[in-house]
Amino acid sequence: MADALTPTPEDRFSFGLWTVGWTARDPFGDATRPPLDAVEAVHRLSELGAWGITFHDDDLIPFGSDDPERERRIDAFRKALDETGLTVPMVTTNLFSHPVFKEGALTANDRDVRRFAMRKVMRNLDLAAELGAQTYVFWGGREGSETEASKDIGAALDRLREGLDTLAQYCIDQGYDIRFALEPKPNEPRGDILLPTVGHALAFIASLDHADRVGVNPEVGHEQMAGLNFVHGVAQALWAGKLFHIDLNGQRGIKYDQDLIFGHGDVLNAFFLVDLLETAGYDGPRHFDYKPLRTEDTTGVWQSAEANMRTYLMLKERAAAFRADPEVVEALEAARVPELATSTLAAGESWQDLLADPSAYEDFDPELAGARGVGAVRLEQLAVEHLLGRR
Amino acid sequence: MADALTPTPEDRFSFGLWTVGWTARDPFGDATRPPLDAVEAVHRLSELGAWGITFHDDDLIPFGSDDPERERRIDAFRKALDETGLTVPMVTTNLFSHPVFKEGALTANDRDVRRFAMRKVMRNLDLAAELGAQTYVFWGGREGSETEASKDIGAALDRLREGLDTLAQYCIDQGYDIRFALEPKPNEPRGDILLPTVGHALAFIASLDHADRVGVNPEVGHEQMAGLNFVHGVAQALWAGKLFHIDLNGQRGIKYDQDLIFGHGDVLNAFFLVDLLETAGYDGPRHFDYKPLRTEDTTGVWQSAEANMRTYLMLKERAAAFRADPEVVEALEAARVPELATSTLAAGESWQDLLADPSAYEDFDPELAGARGVGAVRLEQLAVEHLLGRR
Amino acid sequence: MADALTPTPEDRFSFGLWTVGWTARDPFGDATRPPLDAVEAVHRLSELGAWGITFHDDDLIPFGSDDPERERRIDAFRKALDETGLTVPMVTTNLFSHPVFKEGALTANDRDVRRFAMRKVMRNLDLAAELGAQTYVFWGGREGSETEASKDIGAALDRLREGLDTLAQYCIDQGYDIRFALEPKPNEPRGDILLPTVGHALAFIASLDHADRVGVNPEVGHEQMAGLNFVHGVAQALWAGKLFHIDLNGQRGIKYDQDLIFGHGDVLNAFFLVDLLETAGYDGPRHFDYKPLRTEDTTGVWQSAEANMRTYLMLKERAAAFRADPEVVEALEAARVPELATSTLAAGESWQDLLADPSAYEDFDPELAGARGVGAVRLEQLAVEHLLGRR
Amino acid sequence: MADALTPTPEDRFSFGLWTVGWTARDPFGDATRPPLDAVEAVHRLSELGAWGITFHDDDLIPFGSDDPERERRIDAFRKALDETGLTVPMVTTNLFSHPVFKEGALTANDRDVRRFAMRKVMRNLDLAAELGAQTYVFWGGREGSETEASKDIGAALDRLREGLDTLAQYCIDQGYDIRFALEPKPNEPRGDILLPTVGHALAFIASLDHADRVGVNPEVGHEQMAGLNFVHGVAQALWAGKLFHIDLNGQRGIKYDQDLIFGHGDVLNAFFLVDLLETAGYDGPRHFDYKPLRTEDTTGVWQSAEANMRTYLMLKERAAAFRADPEVVEALEAARVPELATSTLAAGESWQDLLADPSAYEDFDPELAGARGVGAVRLEQLAVEHLLGRR
Repeated sequence: MADALTPTPEDRFSFGLWTVGWTARDPFGDATRPPLDAVEAVHRLSELGAWGITFHDDDLIPFGSDDPERERRIDAFRKALDETGLTVPMVTTNLFSHPVFKEGALTANDRDVRRFAMRKVMRNLDLAAELGAQTYVFWGGREGSETEASKDIGAALDRLREGLDTLAQYCIDQGYDIRFALEPKPNEPRGDILLPTVGHALAFIASLDHADRVGVNPEVGHEQMAGLNFVHGVAQALWAGKLFHIDLNGQRGIKYDQDLIFGHGDVLNAFFLVDLLETAGYDGPRHFDYKPLRTEDTTGVWQSAEANMRTYLMLKERAAAFRADPEVVEALEAARVPELATSTLAAGESWQDLLADPSAYEDFDPELAGARGVGAVRLEQLAVEHLLGRR
Repeated sequence: MADALTPTPEDRFSFGLWTVGWTARDPFGDATRPPLDAVEAVHRLSELGAWGITFHDDDLIPFGSDDPERERRIDAFRKALDETGLTVPMVTTNLFSHPVFKEGALTANDRDVRRFAMRKVMRNLDLAAELGAQTYVFWGGREGSETEASKDIGAALDRLREGLDTLAQYCIDQGYDIRFALEPKPNEPRGDILLPTVGHALAFIASLDHADRVGVNPEVGHEQMAGLNFVHGVAQALWAGKLFHIDLNGQRGIKYDQDLIFGHGDVLNAFFLVDLLETAGYDGPRHFDYKPLRTEDTTGVWQSAEANMRTYLMLKERAAAFRADPEVVEALEAARVPELATSTLAAGESWQDLLADPSAYEDFDPELAGARGVGAVRLEQLAVEHLLGRR
Repeated sequence: MADALTPTPEDRFSFGLWTVGWTARDPFGDATRPPLDAVEAVHRLSELGAWGITFHDDDLIPFGSDDPERERRIDAFRKALDETGLTVPMVTTNLFSHPVFKEGALTANDRDVRRFAMRKVMRNLDLAAELGAQTYVFWGGREGSETEASKDIGAALDRLREGLDTLAQYCIDQGYDIRFALEPKPNEPRGDILLPTVGHALAFIASLDHADRVGVNPEVGHEQMAGLNFVHGVAQALWAGKLFHIDLNGQRGIKYDQDLIFGHGDVLNAFFLVDLLETAGYDGPRHFDYKPLRTEDTTGVWQSAEANMRTYLMLKERAAAFRADPEVVEALEAARVPELATSTLAAGESWQDLLADPSAYEDFDPELAGARGVGAVRLEQLAVEHLLGRR
Repeated sequence: MADALTPTPEDRFSFGLWTVGWTARDPFGDATRPPLDAVEAVHRLSELGAWGITFHDDDLIPFGSDDPERERRIDAFRKALDETGLTVPMVTTNLFSHPVFKEGALTANDRDVRRFAMRKVMRNLDLAAELGAQTYVFWGGREGSETEASKDIGAALDRLREGLDTLAQYCIDQGYDIRFALEPKPNEPRGDILLPTVGHALAFIASLDHADRVGVNPEVGHEQMAGLNFVHGVAQALWAGKLFHIDLNGQRGIKYDQDLIFGHGDVLNAFFLVDLLETAGYDGPRHFDYKPLRTEDTTGVWQSAEANMRTYLMLKERAAAFRADPEVVEALEAARVPELATSTLAAGESWQDLLADPSAYEDFDPELAGARGVGAVRLEQLAVEHLLGRR
């Protein structure tokens, strides 16, 4: 059965350079792995069946590199892309590692830091466009605070809006066919981060001048760090037409950001996520933003890269079987799940008509309706049995 | 100093009838208190200095009451309002207690339930308008699911939009000067609830036909059940011009919905909340949506009502002193907090200008900027000392 | 393949009468199901393949029943047991529903309440012994507080110790062959509950006069409400020789107590739990302490009962296959998992010997050892693939 | 009133060298501060009024230092201690930073790593004894796993027991007057850590050969990362006679380990903690284990050190006033809080006597007792008002 689980470029699997390249330094420990060369990453990911690779500017070109060094690194990277056919579907900026961003980047209290951050993004947008990236992710890991006293949230939202509108204008004027995707996270490394969930990001986007060019990049673990149902968040983003990109990984509950392998956390939610992505018409990248466990050496790194893709493909198989099972179809009908697609008012019905309809209220028997079983247990158990491959 | 802590109608304190009236039945225990008559609630709250009282339809008129009973109860309630001068600033619908709503109300899979729910709201909107309420709250406690299999989230959002647009149209056509406020909650009583946070609700509102008439009603505990910073959520709602109402209470971390007395949870966050409400121009009700502890008798109920208002007033005093302290003003300047109100680009500056400004990038020294201390510790400690009245 | 998933009494599955009998009243809603007769519960559970039924005193005999009513109910229950062969492996006391226990039972501040609670337990111990129960569970749902000011925790622990020692003495003197099992829970219905986790309960037990007769009854959801790894908690209880009983159910993260069907939450952790229970020599009941979703009618109730057992049996199959897979055995060896069973000091080796061994320190190369990959990723992926039945 | 908030050695405040010395490298960012010399730390802390300083071996002597370097550093440190009078009340081992411990230290699967870890501890115990430390802390930050498959928890507990028993024997044989204190933490840097809470640690200690020499070192944030009430955990440790040391800091809910300043989190719980420590006879160090915010420079570091002590002293003042307030005393009596110290059975009363006492059951009126209000609201509000200095 290996074939069905062997990834191909058609699966649109992509990886951050910083994921397989993580040297495994954590808040309490030193690096356990040597740095990974970007060129090697391209070749290995390509061999494993990935379709794309993504990066922060500083992943590819260390902060502070001079121009020749920068060019040398970009050239080598591009050459590897050409040799392998790997794409660069997304690029992003590191606005969080250097001390200069310790109090924020686009929303730093210090205006000079904000201007520097804008320029850092602009420079990297040029590279992103050059490499053909369609999406540019903004993760504002340092846009936040530990104490309410130190940050005016309204002003911070003003500045974030200003920054994104300006950068969107930059892309428009430069003719870059790039969309922005905001990546929410509730906390870590800041005590509280601006735009903590998919919802907050979607709400903020509605305020932008170039809202049409801006969507979200939800990450499994980030929503689950707030105890939220990731599938529901992604569904709302899809409903709003704003799922521009997605970060797949694993998280085991409300705690520090674990960045586990996709599915190595709440695998039941992951099953429904793949079900949603594969049926709702999402055709963007399946991007893995995870960290190979610090316990692993390079062998484990590549096993973990492979595991992300295998798990996605396994869940895709299981979800397809779930949807194809006549008993599931029947159980969905019995639970009236499809009935929710029917509008509450009939076509052309007004509130006046509803008010005049005694079957809606005067003749409706709430006791009877309340006594009817919904059938959610049956559906959930069918899902669990399909997930476990036991039907 | 007792005077400063004695509430007056100018403080705009309001209470839900269901709060002081809670009989203290919980998931593991029976009621410990007798029902409270609505008329008595009006008189007692008025005596304590409250300004308003709010209710769900079923709080005032038990579900299934016939018309004479309904009228009798409304009349008695209105008479008490007239006698005391207590206002009814907000009304809401109970779409969660009766079994008929067990699988949802405006987003129930069962279309008949949805139509019934619409009618229940319409009927109660009439009463709200009659009593002069300016705000109508929607808390969709049953709009959600325990298993992803049983609910199509996209369809649910469609139905919620349809419902709210229809009900807003109803108000417009009827000439009701009522705004809607959506109350988010992440979970409980459902495993996952639609529009789980302030952010999700704000994003959803942007999709409505009558978005201008719809805002949010954030509740302290509901955001804190997702580990989110309540002050930040309220600040984003204010920034969006959507803080139409607010539910004040206390919560001690991520767990079941505690509905403690305001301030009897994260009192540091409550301090900053009052600071924000009192300085950001919010002039709506300060509405307490809490539950007197199940251990208390009627005496404890009224002590708890009083405690909510006293604590708010104490925090208001403390926040005012914090803002007035010259050392705080100086520390805010030192931390460049006001500088965030300055736009990142100068007036009239374009991205081209920014790109041409070497001081923004080429001549900017990130090492120097990164080495400068922010002063957040000093600010936080000043806040803690003001909160503790120890400056 | 249905046969392997059909439960038999050998599986030792038991259910609380209050689980299938839950009328689905929750903090925000009324009952959606009629009460279930205990006799019917016995028959239905027996038909489904269960082995045992358990109860709180008040489940079987409503609080305040007179003696004839009590006898009538017990007789009918016993008759049903005799007819079906269903056993009563465990009994427990309801010390939480009635208002008298609102501030605690064995640790109520009010000494009269404590004495009453003791007598209620004693009376029910007689019935437990009569029905042949081997285990008596103590869940102290009301032993706690919402404010630190109202409860002296040290005194509460004294009283709990006194209570349990006295009750253990009662059993000894009466010749009851009953062991006690303490059930921890962090919160809900109290803000904080005494003995919040398996660890706290185990520590407390060590202080008892009759510690040998007292163990724990961990519940999946209760530990997960504190974000703890349930498998680790159960493993520590087994290690301490104190796993006297277990409550199986499902929970989706840190929130209110969901009491979902077993496996309908963190199914990966559930897989490892079944693996542990089936391999560590635990031969006690597999007790389901869950609540059928409030959305379900009676049909859903019995489907949910069945689903608990099927899911356990599916996971048992999957765990057995995992352990039997030669690749898993090899991967465990490679990760040196079995090596942890080898003592750190050799047989007879003293600290002096260790100190004198240069290979332990002077000649040990930490860089080399630190560079070696552990192989945890491979193990985890093997587990996920076995869970999904995809090997 | 500044004097009362100026710390003196009598307050027994101590700081970890790694706290003020943290260079502020976090999982997403580089160091923002230069390393701090241990000698300077001693002088500065002494000037600020601290009484003690503590360290991990590698804080003072970088991992891998040769013997002369080691001696040089120890000598300089000792000289600074002598000059200032600062004590070293506690020492601990770093068994988590170096890659060699990535999979565990005393419970690593790799036996050689375990032996190396033992030797590292033994070497540092010699230094601890030399410097007069009374307490030796064990924080097993790497003793855990991310996947259940990779760690046999029972075996891990066996090895931890073996390790601690051996090390305790080492101290006994060497004549070191040092007690061990285990520091629990639920997660981070491992997905799940062994002995995740105070309860689990206390339970484990009961299994040790030298249990009398081993207690706990609870940390505010670590318990709060599991949503547990820190005051309750400390109270149980005190009750068990096992509060050997304590780590004070701040945490804002269930998230990554924040290590904020003491009181800059749940300040209400901190108030009750100081109340407990100051009244329960705890005479050990008040040890601050926190991290100065990454946004701060060296000035902010020393402000944060000072803030920890000031906040403790403010809370101590507030707690003393709370206990001295006659209204509080009266409210405690009314809530029957002191009555919990009265045993449930009278002196000499047996269960037979209790059974024969009709006032305990037959004549007891649960309805009447259940209707009586407890008065917890009043107590909590008094506490809040004392905390805020508003009485």
